[in-house]
Amino acid sequence: MGSFQIRTDLALEARENIEENEGEIHGVRYEEKYDEKKDVKVTRVVIDTKNGAKAMGKPMGTYVTMEAPGMLEPDEDYHREISVCLAEQLKELIPHMDAEQSILVVGLGNRDVTADALGPHVVDNLFITRHVVKEYGKAAYNASKMNLISSMEPGVMAKTGMETAEIIKGVVMQTAPDVLIVIDALAARSIRRLNRTIQITDTGIQPGSGVGNHRNALTKESLGIPVIAIGVPTVVDAATIVGDALERLAKECGDSGSNVRLGEYPKTFTELGNMYVTSKDIDAVIKRLGYTLSEGINIALEMS
Amino acid sequence: MGSFQIRTDLALEARENIEENEGEIHGVRYEEKYDEKKDVKVTRVVIDTKNGAKAMGKPMGTYVTMEAPGMLEPDEDYHREISVCLAEQLKELIPHMDAEQSILVVGLGNRDVTADALGPHVVDNLFITRHVVKEYGKAAYNASKMNLISSMEPGVMAKTGMETAEIIKGVVMQTAPDVLIVIDALAARSIRRLNRTIQITDTGIQPGSGVGNHRNALTKESLGIPVIAIGVPTVVDAATIVGDALERLAKECGDSGSNVRLGEYPKTFTELGNMYVTSKDIDAVIKRLGYTLSEGINIALEMS
Amino acid sequence: MGSFQIRTDLALEARENIEENEGEIHGVRYEEKYDEKKDVKVTRVVIDTKNGAKAMGKPMGTYVTMEAPGMLEPDEDYHREISVCLAEQLKELIPHMDAEQSILVVGLGNRDVTADALGPHVVDNLFITRHVVKEYGKAAYNASKMNLISSMEPGVMAKTGMETAEIIKGVVMQTAPDVLIVIDALAARSIRRLNRTIQITDTGIQPGSGVGNHRNALTKESLGIPVIAIGVPTVVDAATIVGDALERLAKECGDSGSNVRLGEYPKTFTELGNMYVTSKDIDAVIKRLGYTLSEGINIALEMS
Amino acid sequence: MGSFQIRTDLALEARENIEENEGEIHGVRYEEKYDEKKDVKVTRVVIDTKNGAKAMGKPMGTYVTMEAPGMLEPDEDYHREISVCLAEQLKELIPHMDAEQSILVVGLGNRDVTADALGPHVVDNLFITRHVVKEYGKAAYNASKMNLISSMEPGVMAKTGMETAEIIKGVVMQTAPDVLIVIDALAARSIRRLNRTIQITDTGIQPGSGVGNHRNALTKESLGIPVIAIGVPTVVDAATIVGDALERLAKECGDSGSNVRLGEYPKTFTELGNMYVTSKDIDAVIKRLGYTLSEGINIALEMS
Repeated sequence: MGSFQIRTDLALEARENIEENEGEIHGVRYEEKYDEKKDVKVTRVVIDTKNGAKAMGKPMGTYVTMEAPGMLEPDEDYHREISVCLAEQLKELIPHMDAEQSILVVGLGNRDVTADALGPHVVDNLFITRHVVKEYGKAAYNASKMNLISSMEPGVMAKTGMETAEIIKGVVMQTAPDVLIVIDALAARSIRRLNRTIQITDTGIQPGSGVGNHRNALTKESLGIPVIAIGVPTVVDAATIVGDALERLAKECGDSGSNVRLGEYPKTFTELGNMYVTSKDIDAVIKRLGYTLSEGINIALEMS
Repeated sequence: MGSFQIRTDLALEARENIEENEGEIHGVRYEEKYDEKKDVKVTRVVIDTKNGAKAMGKPMGTYVTMEAPGMLEPDEDYHREISVCLAEQLKELIPHMDAEQSILVVGLGNRDVTADALGPHVVDNLFITRHVVKEYGKAAYNASKMNLISSMEPGVMAKTGMETAEIIKGVVMQTAPDVLIVIDALAARSIRRLNRTIQITDTGIQPGSGVGNHRNALTKESLGIPVIAIGVPTVVDAATIVGDALERLAKECGDSGSNVRLGEYPKTFTELGNMYVTSKDIDAVIKRLGYTLSEGINIALEMS
Repeated sequence: MGSFQIRTDLALEARENIEENEGEIHGVRYEEKYDEKKDVKVTRVVIDTKNGAKAMGKPMGTYVTMEAPGMLEPDEDYHREISVCLAEQLKELIPHMDAEQSILVVGLGNRDVTADALGPHVVDNLFITRHVVKEYGKAAYNASKMNLISSMEPGVMAKTGMETAEIIKGVVMQTAPDVLIVIDALAARSIRRLNRTIQITDTGIQPGSGVGNHRNALTKESLGIPVIAIGVPTVVDAATIVGDALERLAKECGDSGSNVRLGEYPKTFTELGNMYVTSKDIDAVIKRLGYTLSEGINIALEMS
Repeated sequence: MGSFQIRTDLALEARENIEENEGEIHGVRYEEKYDEKKDVKVTRVVIDTKNGAKAMGKPMGTYVTMEAPGMLEPDEDYHREISVCLAEQLKELIPHMDAEQSILVVGLGNRDVTADALGPHVVDNLFITRHVVKEYGKAAYNASKMNLISSMEPGVMAKTGMETAEIIKGVVMQTAPDVLIVIDALAARSIRRLNRTIQITDTGIQPGSGVGNHRNALTKESLGIPVIAIGVPTVVDAATIVGDALERLAKECGDSGSNVRLGEYPKTFTELGNMYVTSKDIDAVIKRLGYTLSEGINIALEMS
């Protein structure tokens, strides 16, 4: 009945949406695990076939989602546990983690738009080693094994005039990292998922995704190296939130005779097209998530 | 039929809402002027009586609204015209503008939440004179008449632990300005008003208003000096945007038999309570508005 | 022989300077303690008499200095030890620490000048409780005893047009805290003291002190409540660094016949008057010190 | 007699230093022009030969210096004149300015260290066109001729782990601009040159130059396209300022018998090695220079 497109960057929600309407999807595996002690639910959606990819509207690959209701608590012990869990998931998804690798971490997003500033805040707090190891060797860290970790913040096209994919591709070709990790703020369908969900996928970044609606893909295909994307939904697309409520209401009216023609509201949806819904404490959220995610990445990339 | 509260800080919208539902309001005067050359529409809502204040849900006083569709254009000439127009309106509302006065300009809002950062961005670009005149006299500016202009950014209670009203009252009592000008980001009902409307009022700041939902009043009554508030709506409250769409749809269904009970959606509205809708280019908007408003204030306060 | 004024905000250096030239000072007590495990040296200078105050050029009171060569290391364990040590010193200097008090922490300095941004960075990371306790009570923290902690960042006179002392006095009179803690970046005489020395004193802030050369005092006398000042030297005044080197050279030449007349260089010293010397990695320094000091204050003010 | 190296990024000062000590330099042409109305002095140093380059310690090419004592005045009319003058100089140095070109403007420097933040502040205010023209054509600007202008801020190696030259080279190879303009904060020898001097050169960036002591060259040789560097000195290297004063004093003592052995002060110079001298109002300076330089670049690159 919906005459508008529900927008979500979460594979979890895409699957839920299809299941609601069409039932089980072939070519898509699903498993979930709940860590009661940490109060973290980890789900794993794996799209195995082209059919599954088509149905889901997302490419083949693995999508891990961590959901932690308490993720927003300022409790430092809890945030440390989330970081540890994130590190575990990363170590499973990033290939060759037992070998020393060169890893470039890119913080996508616009630092000046709070809800889209997650990437920049994460890279602010990463442990960067590449320049020290190249100049002084691993001995500088008293380590026998070190990853060469670098980072960057490519900004947004409205300010640079360049696609972030152009900038990142140029840097990747010049510095030849083994792996690219990309951090991005996402759009979810449900406000209940905001700020407490982390999606980690080996499918990189797809066109149209992210708060900033990325124009180009950042994938193994386009860049030649594995691209691991880490995202947290911080906004719900405004048209999605209104359309969702209208659909529920339409079902109600529909029972009494299909009076609702959502097609009558194209103007509203067009106006909402450039808007998003976010929470009022988004600055505290981004600050906290910045630490949680950077710590998870730092733990994952350190080699004992 | 609406079972939710439409939220708006704009007197213009409050009046429209009542007119739609109840017709003309006693005790509220209304006049509008359109400047064709500048493409600016200036409306003046004056609440004269307690009844009018009660009906409008806003205190007695004058509310001037400037609407300029082109306000968002990066065209520097146009933005200069808006500033000039704003200065004219300010000079009418601020008492005793022909005399030299001490004027404190306060930028309300949270610098770290883009949509609420209007106040801070405006005070960043003000022409501050108080310390120079107190130390070196008006001669420092080669002027025979100067206003003593000071400014501050009190932050938000979540970060300071203090009500902004406590901070401002303390500073007003200590430095004894003649007039307080307060700048704030507002919430509108309609997304069509966002970022291109300036409201200037001599009623100060009311509890519950602003993107930050101010807890205390900043008024002549509470501070002892005239308080002129300048605001631009940058967000629509999320519950308002959904409720608005639902109401329109409900009217549709209602024609066919009141099937819609908006009371069935209390959970949705509760969840939306802490969220707002804003535009994706909010950083560019705030940057531009910061210049437009500060220039208008600078022009208004300079004495030739 | 020095014909210029050595500038230092550190009581420790003021005392060294006098000792070098005049020997022991009456009315000034001195004791030092070295914690070998933590590699922190804590000295205590207590000015007991007016004569001592006159000789030192600093008011009567207690000046505790923590010197930790390793303070700049990014080692998180080490920085935690410094914070714990700082908390111990604070608990000795702040009166009535066993009782629940209302404590206002002020971050002096200019956020936009990196070497002067220490105050703002510290208050960014404080645990603020006043608004929560006033609204929900201590139960909100599951605590039987809580201090009411608030903070602010008054900015600088060049931007506000007001003396920071006016702003702070106004807020103190309005919110009536029991204690004021002030954080400030300082000027030292020797670059060897920069970034690794913390001075804590119960004498508040004196006119002329700080990177920003504060114009007014913030003391128990001026504000009516105890004022504890915490400072770290981040700059050396440029005239001081040149004059210091010239003095040493002059001593050299002086042995061969007083050829050096430093009075010949007044122009240089005047030009240098508005300049300071700071280290190139000042951003990393301020970021780290921000955490170290805020953590120390948080530990000191928590009540178990 | 100087046993230390005077550090300056200004060709003007390098030439003065040599002239003082050695007289005229072969292979180096010099001409100056003074615009009395604008109070701007424009000098042109052209290094024609390898010998000249060796003597000057700077590569062959053209170095234009604009000196404007009033450059710091907040007077908006004056700053506009400096921008116009800068635009004229740029149009002479940038090749093929009559043709439509793709121009990448890079803001070097560390945004978080105020004295080194000039590059980032300039690119913040540039008129960026590349993405709009590529998507909508020149018609989007109602123009028949447009330059494709893009920009970036590569950050600093301490934060990214990568040389800025690696990042820039990667982006240049990917987006293939015709010209690179680089903005950087410089080190001068004399504090009298700070903040009021603009150097524009077609020799790009040399290793060791800039407040950040760039490690790699950004030149036509290394990047394959013309590199125009625009710089303003904002700091004096601390060892240089002390050494300079000592040299003058040593000359004084020297007249009476070479008692001064600057070699005795190696420890001081080593300690000063990581430090610089800058002015206290550096934030206002960087803000103003950011506008002046960006406006000059915008004017130079617009095509009427």
